Parts: sequence; structure tokens; C-alpha cells
Amino acid sequence: MKRIAVLTSGGDAPGMNAAVRAVVRKAIKEGMEVFGINRGYAGMVDGDIFPLDAQSVSNILSRGGTFLQSARYPEFATLEGQLAGIEQLKKHGIEGVVVIGGDGSYHGAMRLTEHGFPAVGIPGTIDNDIAGTDYTLGFDTAVNTAMEALDKIRDTSYSHKRTFVVEVMGRNAGDIALWAGIAAGADQIIIPEEEYDINDVVAKVKDGYENKGKERHLIVLAEGVMHAEKFAELMKEAGDTSDLRATNLGHILRGGAPSPRDRVLASWMGAHAVELLQQGRGGLAVGIHNEELVESPILGTKEEGALFSLAEDGSIIVNMPHKARLDFAQLNRDIAHL
Amino acid sequence: MKRIAVLTSGGDAPGMNAAVRAVVRKAIKEGMEVFGINRGYAGMVDGDIFPLDAQSVSNILSRGGTFLQSARYPEFATLEGQLAGIEQLKKHGIEGVVVIGGDGSYHGAMRLTEHGFPAVGIPGTIDNDIAGTDYTLGFDTAVNTAMEALDKIRDTSYSHKRTFVVEVMGRNAGDIALWAGIAAGADQIIIPEEEYDINDVVAKVKDGYENKGKERHLIVLAEGVMHAEKFAELMKEAGDTSDLRATNLGHILRGGAPSPRDRVLASWMGAHAVELLQQGRGGLAVGIHNEELVESPILGTKEEGALFSLAEDGSIIVNMPHKARLDFAQLNRDIAHL
Amino acid sequence: MKRIAVLTSGGDAPGMNAAVRAVVRKAIKEGMEVFGINRGYAGMVDGDIFPLDAQSVSNILSRGGTFLQSARYPEFATLEGQLAGIEQLKKHGIEGVVVIGGDGSYHGAMRLTEHGFPAVGIPGTIDNDIAGTDYTLGFDTAVNTAMEALDKIRDTSYSHKRTFVVEVMGRNAGDIALWAGIAAGADQIIIPEEEYDINDVVAKVKDGYENKGKERHLIVLAEGVMHAEKFAELMKEAGDTSDLRATNLGHILRGGAPSPRDRVLASWMGAHAVELLQQGRGGLAVGIHNEELVESPILGTKEEGALFSLAEDGSIIVNMPHKARLDFAQLNRDIAHL
Amino acid sequence: MKRIAVLTSGGDAPGMNAAVRAVVRKAIKEGMEVFGINRGYAGMVDGDIFPLDAQSVSNILSRGGTFLQSARYPEFATLEGQLAGIEQLKKHGIEGVVVIGGDGSYHGAMRLTEHGFPAVGIPGTIDNDIAGTDYTLGFDTAVNTAMEALDKIRDTSYSHKRTFVVEVMGRNAGDIALWAGIAAGADQIIIPEEEYDINDVVAKVKDGYENKGKERHLIVLAEGVMHAEKFAELMKEAGDTSDLRATNLGHILRGGAPSPRDRVLASWMGAHAVELLQQGRGGLAVGIHNEELVESPILGTKEEGALFSLAEDGSIIVNMPHKARLDFAQLNRDIAHL
Repeated sequence: MKRIAVLTSGGDAPGMNAAVRAVVRKAIKEGMEVFGINRGYAGMVDGDIFPLDAQSVSNILSRGGTFLQSARYPEFATLEGQLAGIEQLKKHGIEGVVVIGGDGSYHGAMRLTEHGFPAVGIPGTIDNDIAGTDYTLGFDTAVNTAMEALDKIRDTSYSHKRTFVVEVMGRNAGDIALWAGIAAGADQIIIPEEEYDINDVVAKVKDGYENKGKERHLIVLAEGVMHAEKFAELMKEAGDTSDLRATNLGHILRGGAPSPRDRVLASWMGAHAVELLQQGRGGLAVGIHNEELVESPILGTKEEGALFSLAEDGSIIVNMPHKARLDFAQLNRDIAHL
Repeated sequence: MKRIAVLTSGGDAPGMNAAVRAVVRKAIKEGMEVFGINRGYAGMVDGDIFPLDAQSVSNILSRGGTFLQSARYPEFATLEGQLAGIEQLKKHGIEGVVVIGGDGSYHGAMRLTEHGFPAVGIPGTIDNDIAGTDYTLGFDTAVNTAMEALDKIRDTSYSHKRTFVVEVMGRNAGDIALWAGIAAGADQIIIPEEEYDINDVVAKVKDGYENKGKERHLIVLAEGVMHAEKFAELMKEAGDTSDLRATNLGHILRGGAPSPRDRVLASWMGAHAVELLQQGRGGLAVGIHNEELVESPILGTKEEGALFSLAEDGSIIVNMPHKARLDFAQLNRDIAHL
Repeated sequence: MKRIAVLTSGGDAPGMNAAVRAVVRKAIKEGMEVFGINRGYAGMVDGDIFPLDAQSVSNILSRGGTFLQSARYPEFATLEGQLAGIEQLKKHGIEGVVVIGGDGSYHGAMRLTEHGFPAVGIPGTIDNDIAGTDYTLGFDTAVNTAMEALDKIRDTSYSHKRTFVVEVMGRNAGDIALWAGIAAGADQIIIPEEEYDINDVVAKVKDGYENKGKERHLIVLAEGVMHAEKFAELMKEAGDTSDLRATNLGHILRGGAPSPRDRVLASWMGAHAVELLQQGRGGLAVGIHNEELVESPILGTKEEGALFSLAEDGSIIVNMPHKARLDFAQLNRDIAHL
Repeated sequence: MKRIAVLTSGGDAPGMNAAVRAVVRKAIKEGMEVFGINRGYAGMVDGDIFPLDAQSVSNILSRGGTFLQSARYPEFATLEGQLAGIEQLKKHGIEGVVVIGGDGSYHGAMRLTEHGFPAVGIPGTIDNDIAGTDYTLGFDTAVNTAMEALDKIRDTSYSHKRTFVVEVMGRNAGDIALWAGIAAGADQIIIPEEEYDINDVVAKVKDGYENKGKERHLIVLAEGVMHAEKFAELMKEAGDTSDLRATNLGHILRGGAPSPRDRVLASWMGAHAVELLQQGRGGLAVGIHNEELVESPILGTKEEGALFSLAEDGSIIVNMPHKARLDFAQLNRDIAHL
């Protein structure tokens, strides 16, 4: 391959810029030309495609977001959209593409693969909910940001003997809640992957104040369960009498300078994606597993280790959905002062 | 005076611990004994009072919140509560008290003064809405925290060409919104001290995307105006067509390690409060004005420069209500790219 | 004036970019054209001058350093260099220039003024050692960075019962040492503006460990006194027996995202510098004094409030040299646990 | 086991407090009593041993350093010291001990094991140079701190077109240099595990400025190679003509609030160490390998997977010395703009 392109798609995540930088630098070192595609699949179809040189990625390593911008683009789910995109790529002489993003981005890469166009996926989302990798780009940074915010809230919580329910992002995954919760010394962590009993939640709060000398209470709630306000209401209905506040960390988790781990991981995955394309290998998603890079077929059978299969009716089957570490949920119960 | 006490009251603010430390250290250096009062006026009335030595404040300088804890205590508004509090102080041989907190805390200090008990106030609140001082303890830290959060949101805002309405604390004051907004490059800052026209707000957003090549839009909204969600609704009703999100930075602004400016200011005010008590001067609020410490009578006439006067019906008159810097609002309009 | 330029000169400081942004944005709003000059006076003489539009300063507010780059350029001290620089400015139709930097930069601005070319100075240096202003751009950020580093060192200091001598930048001024030292709870602060007795320094260390139960000792040393290694040697010679380490925070103090205070100050000064040029007023240095912007003549008599006068032999007289706040040095002694 | 103790030893590292907290909380949950030992093995021999309850570790999770303090104690290398320590433990009814620290700490744990006293080791050091684990406590935090400092230096480096040689800690291991270097976009990383040619280093610097349009150069140097000042001298001798500065990040890398990864890892290892003691299993070092906890015999044969063996002459053989990831060194060369 002599010419490749790179795009970012879906929700932005810290580390995306670092991955783009690695793709560009590695490809140039290997004698390839590299193009950037603006605004994900939308830009691909529109032909918003431009050359990138080594200098052009000089100042982006430490910056959150994605300088290539991102966009959701449902039109790429149609055959027409897909063919239009590929036509644009071919028009620019591009022979392979690196796609950085989450679920939806991978679906797009899968379609390119289906049509025989070499695509390599890199998992970029703060939610850590992508199959085929232990960690996604942006997850470690989001956990850092959440923990720092929780540390701040704990100060206030102690000063006023308050109970806080703090909602953190993560879509349907509890990973951010689990890691940030353990890191910030949460008294309880509520995630979508585990059942909870609201009466039990309230009983623990009461026990803390009344019997354990705990002059504050911190509950970290994954957004996949419900909103913090709603959860606080349920607690009140279940008899909570503490000075209870609900807050949502919201969008701050999506931005910020990436952590070193995210920068290193992004650099590593970016360089590896180029190596795969150079070997003419497309249709793969890069991941990290047990501290080493791995790659999985994006489309195929479960037996082949493919992330997705297509059902007879054309719908997408996720072969190995992401699972949160339930042992971490237990760990937090083991070390909470309750 | 041989024995003084210190308490924190009202909403907690970064720098309160630093002020308590300075009070304790300075008083000991001057040969006084110092007592801490837990949970503000509530602890005063309950007699939750205990001695503090130099060592006891060794690790608190860099910590948010207040290790003396704080509480709202409406009962101190009654004569009965006030007399009970003074009785407890006298029982411990305490001759003067340093009160760190906001509005309500000052009202308490005013009542102590009324009854002839020497009290000195230190302005501690993130909102910067206290008369008699250019800055309150916690304000600089809150602006730092808000700016860092806004910087993160700007990353996402750019990546997705989004408009964000971000709500920040400040009660009825726009100070946090103004400072953090300028610091984070807000396109528009909406504060309670200024009128705004929602159609104008929306027109500026549109102009940015359509004519100015601005691929994002950041509106910082002071909580004193309304909630972010509501403001976003008004924008939509007024015809906004951008990809608009509302978020609230919430309670993270109240906590965190104090900034150097807050720690220095707290140390300075704390030491000065002790000097005043040592001179037998109570009924004063310490402030910073034009880079030097000043003190104002808490209770008296407007002509005397007192913060509060009492009306004939006993209600409290605020003589010089805090004013936000409207020149800063203009400054931001002058340098915004709109 | 229809066309102005902006340059940064001398050591870089956080907030320089924010000031450039404000100059550009405000000037455009006033209908002017703005040019950037690369590498300070060197770029002026070389004609490294290029137009800046509102968009070109979109992403620099939060970034340390200066995107216009900076350079020391001793050649500008010669008449020949000065005239060459002015010729380049005139060639580009530039009628006024904003100079952001420290001492040396102001000297350059003074020369432009001497030759009748309107220049306005903005004080940009972390050292806070510029006359005509209470604070320089970058100082607050440097104090933040120093304090955060000192907080980290204090952790280790306590864990190992160690004494640390930590050197901080500041050239001949003790300001960074004073502010960061108070903020980090330094036991002793050594600055060039005050005498010290090494035996007294050592006696205090000993007293802390032996009599005060202080299980660590932190000495903050301004670089204007001497290097940390040397100071530690002197302590050892004077009989210190503690586990003593010397470290230098070094260059990290010069970089980093500017603090909100530096960003606001930079925005304010930048906009004001444009207003002055617009009124045809050059030969002035902008400063902040008592929370309001002020301007001082760069060249003139002491009576006129000018920063510099020229002696008969042509040498530069600094009329009001910067003074550190010695009351802060006393404050720290009052609240240190010694 | 009904009663266990915990100590920290060797250089302090962020995360040690989090590990102590987990040991205490988990042990209490399992019905054990827990004791803290001050100042490592020194405190063990002195009997500086005191009970810890759940409350006593309430505020330490987010704090750097170790509240149990640490000390080097060469006397524990003698049989006499070891037996005195064990006697003290037995006097307090302690049946097992958790040792958190680096190399020397493990040697102590090995001796306890030799004498039949159950000890479990947890790897705590920023250097990441301990066998039996992919990561040590404190490493991720140190990499964060180093990266943030390097980001700041890069600002200045660019502003002044300077070359910086920045020394980072790590004893004989290049891990901090590698991770922080990749994360901060170092142009060159020099570690003890790899040869380097000073002429090649200088040639790359020259090539950057002259041919690649790189207006700055950042070299990250592991302390295991040599000091930064010395390296800069060698560069000058080898013909470097750039504006070159050497700086040492020094002790700031050892302190600071632990990163979430270090807090989670510490919590996990701490809880697991208690489980091992509860099962009566001592003589083990806990580690993380491939994202799961593992344990290795501290003393034994290489075949058994033991960290250390004893040679016939009594000297300690390290069976599987830590190895830095040389593939990361190559990765950085692949994505550097050189």
C-alpha cells in the first residue's frame, strides 16, 4: 500500500489525536502517503479528505478531542452511503483506511471490509465497552477526570456530613464507575451489570452515619443504571434521611489532555494499524489484551474470533460483548468501611 | 485575650483549612490558647469545642473542605440560640472567636458583636459575593476548577461542532462565570447582573457557525440566571438549530485543593484576625482591598463603613452589596470572535 | 492607527498567548489589521512579519509558551538594529507595536519610543520583577506549578523524615519563593531581599525535629540567593545533621497552561494595549495596580512616573525597581510551626 | 490468623497509603485485628507497633507518601536484627505481616520467610523495577507527573527553539523514561537498557532543526544512564550547536496524589495480601501479570518461580530481573519526527 487515510468517528475520546499522530508518523516512516478525513464517515462521503505530513501532527499529542473532528453519520448504514465513501477514497488513490472510534465506527469499518476495502479499527471511546480489547483509548483519562472530581466532592461531603450520588458516563458499561469509584473510595458503586436493592443501599448509608462513625457517604452511579436525580428520589422513597445530593459529572469526562497510558496505548495502536495495512491486512480491529497488541477480524464467525457476525436478516450480532470486571465490584465491597 | 476559638460556617470553601491553620499557629505564637468549634454555630451551642495545638493543623493546608466541618444552623438567628452559644464560649474561658464563612456566618458574628462578644469574620465562600472584600476564600480555586472543566468541554465542543451551555455556581453573583468564562474563551457569558436577549444569544451562535468559521460555541451561564437545561430550552424556542447540549458543573466547584492565591490569602487573613482579637478588637470583618488587608465593622451605619445595619423592624440591611465587574463582561465581548 | 503588530520577547511565560489573542481580537473588532512578529526583535529586524486574523488565535488561550516564539536579541541594543527594525515595520505599513515580555523587551520598547515609534509594553515574565505592575503575566501560573511540586515533595519529606531545600526560579526576585512557600507550608523561605543566618536556619531545622515534633522540614530557596546544592552544603558545614536533600524545580516553572488569573490578566492587558495605540498613545507600559489597569511612561523622568530614565552616559536607570512583599516573609514566620 | 501487621519500607511511592488502607479494611472485614508498624523494619525492631481500625485509614487513599513512614534500615540484613524484629511481632501477638516496598523490602520479607514467619510482599516503588509483577505501585503516578512536567518544558522548548535534556528517576530501569517519553512526544529517549551513540544523538538534533522543520528537541534521559548535565556536556563535546539545556525532574516524581490506576492496583493487591495470610500462606510476593493478580515465592529456586535464590555464599540471586520494554523504545523511534 502506498497511500492510506485516517478518520475519527463517534463520540470523541482523549487519545484520538495521539493515535492519528502515530498513524501519520509511522506511515511516513514506511514510505506511505497519509490523508486525513474530516468528520468521520460524513467527510469520507463528502470527499473532505486532505494530505497530512509529519509536521501537521506536531502539536496534537497532548490535546483532547480530535482535530479531525467527528460526527455521527447514520447514512453510512446504507449501501449507497458506503459505496459513495469508497468511491471518494479511490478517487484520492487511497488503498486502506484506519478508523478510530467506538461501536458505530466499527460497523462502518465492517461495511468497508464487506465491500473489500481494507480498514483497520482502533477502539476509541471513554466507555471501555468495545469488544476485542481490554482497554479503549480515553478510558484511563476519563477515570482520572472522574476520580479527581470525586475527590473534590468528597471534601464537601465530609465538611457537611452529606450523602452524594454522583453519576458518571459509560453508556451501558459500569467500567468508569467501577474504576473511579474504587479510586475515590466510594462507599457504594452501582453499575448496570449488577443487581442492587435500594433498601440495602439506604440501610448502608444509615449504618455508616449511625454505627460506623462515617461522616459522609459517596455513591458512584453509572449512567447505564439511571440518572442521579432519579436514584436520589428512589433513596428518599426508601426512607433515606441523610442530607442527600445528586450530581452528574457530565461532559467533562469526554475531554481533557490524555493520560500517559492513553497516549502510549494510542501511539502503539496507531503504529500497529499502519503495519497491518502495510501487510495488506484489512478487516481487523486492533486491541490490547494481556499487555500485548492483538487483532481480531471485524466481520466473521464467532469461531474465528470476529467481533461481529451478520445474521440472516442482515442485523449485526456482537459475538463477544464487553464485560465489566465484577471482581472489582466485590473488591470495593471488601474494602469499603461498611 | 488569652483564649480564642475558631469555627467555619455555611457552605464549605477551599482555603478554610488554611485559614484555620493560620489562626491556630499565629495565636500560639502570640501566647494564646486556641480552641476549635465543630460544625459552626451548631457546635458552639452544643459545646462541641476542643483545644487545637500547632501540630493539629499540620496536614490541612492543602486540603479542600473544612476539617472543623460546617453546618447551616438557623436556630442561631434566635436570641435564645445566641445566648446559649455565648454561654458555652464563656464556660470554656474563650474571649474571642474567629468566624470563617459567608453571609449567614457574618450574621452570626454580627449577633455576637451585638451581645458584646468579640468576633472577627473571614470571608469564606466560592461565590465571591461578600461585602467588604475584593475576594473571598475559595473563589480563585473555584475559578480554576471551572476553567479546567470548561477547557475539557471545549475539546469535545470542537470535535463535534457543538454548542454547550455550561452552568457554574455563584448563587446570585456572576463572578465565577465571568472569570472562568474569560479564562476559558467563552463565546458568551450570561450573568444575573446583566440583561440578555435570548434572540441575540441565538443570533450570535448562528453567526459564529455560518459566517465566522467558529466550529464550536461555548456559553457560560451563572446559576443565578437559571439552570442550563432551561436556558437551552429557551434557545431552542428562539430558533437555535445548532447541536446544543446543557451541562452543570455542579458541586465539583466547592471542593479541591486550594489554589496558591487562596492559601496565601487565607494565611494572611487568619493571622490578621488573631492580631485584631489580640488588640481587643471584635465586631470586624477582615477583607482584602487593593492588595492590602482591610477591616470593616460588621454592624453599624453605612457611614461608618459597616457591612450591615439593622432596620427598625430588626431586619438586616446590607450596606454595600457585592458587585460583579461589568467591565469584565464587556472585555469578553471585546475579545470574543463574534 | 490602522495597522499594528505584536511580538513576544525574552523568557517565555504562560499567558503570553492569551495576551496575543486579546490584542488580535480587540484590534480586529476596532477595525484594525494586526500582524504577528516571530522571534521578538530578531524577527522584527529580519522582517519575519505576517498577518493574523481572528481565527488564527483560536486555540492558543490555554497553551503555555508563545506561538510567536521568543528570542534574546542583543543586537537590538544598537542604534543600527533599532532603525532596521523600524524600517521593517514601516515597510509593512505598521504604525504601532505591542511588546510582551520582561525587562529586555521593555528596553526595546523604550528604544522604539525614543525614535518616535509608538510601542506599548505588556509585562510578561514568571519572575514578577517588572516595575509598573503589581503582577506580571505568568507569575500566578509559576506559583501554581511551584506549589504543586512542593506539595509532592512534602509527601516524600514526611514519609522519610527528610529536610528538603527546594530551589525555585525568580532571577533576583523572591516573589515566586514567597508565594509558593507560604502556599505549600514551607518551614523557611530564603529570598534575596532578606538577610539570613545559616546557623539560624540550621537551628530551626534541629528545633523542629527535636522539640516540635515536626517530622519533616521544607526550605524554599529563591534562585537569586544561590543554588540549592550550595545552600545544602552550607547547612551541612553549619552543623545540620538531618537527612538533607537539595532539588531544583528548574524549567517546569516556565511552561504549562496558564492559570485563570493569568489568562484574565493577559486578556485585559492585551485589549487595553490596543485601546492605547488606537488613541495614538505609545511609549507606555500597561500594568495592574490595585486591581485596575494602569499605564506608565516607559521612558522619562522619575517624577513623571516613567519606568526608565537615561543617564547622561546613556545607561538605563530603573526608576522604581520591583520590591518583594517583605510582610509576606514575616507572615510565613508567624504561621510556621517553629 | 487472627492478627496481622503492615509496614512500608524503602523509597516511598504513591499508592502505598491506598494499599495500607485496603489491608486494614479487608482484614477487619475478615475478622482479623490489624497493626501498623512505623518506619519499616526499623520500627519493627523498635516495637513501634500500634493498632489500626477502619476509621484510622479514612483519609489516606488520595495522599502520596506513606503515613506509616518509611526508612532504610540496613541492620535488618543481620540475623540479630531479623530475630529482634520477629520477637517484637510475636510480643504483639502478630502472626503475619504485609510488607509494601521495593527490593530491599522484599529482602527483609525473604528473611522473615526464612525464619518461618509468614510475610507477603506488595511491590511499591515508582521505578517499576521489581520482579514478579508487570507494574509496581507508584509507577503510573510517576509517569503522570513526569509527563506533565515534560509537557510544560515542551512549551518553553518550542518558544525558544531549544534542546532540552530532561533527566527522570528510575534507578537502573528505563521504564519511567520510556513511558513518559512516548507520552510527551520525546524526540529521543535514552535508557540504560539500550546502547546509544552520542554522535548519533547529536546528528538527530541537527537533522531536526536543519531538515525537518522541528523547532525544538526533547531528549528524555533515564537517571540510570548518567546525569543530565553530564549528558549535555557529552553532546556539546560531540559537536551539538543547538541552544541546549539540561534539567532534572528530581524528587517531584516520588510524591503526589496517586493516579486511579495506582489506587485500584493498591486496593486490589492489599486485599489479596490479606487473603493469602488468611489462608496461612506467607513467603509470597503479590504482583499483577496480564491484568490478573499473581503471587510468586519470595525465596526458592528459579524453577519454582521464586524471585530470589540464595547462593552458597549466602548472597542473594535475583532470578528474573525486571526488563524494560524495548519494543516501546522502538515504537518511539517509529513515531518520532526524525
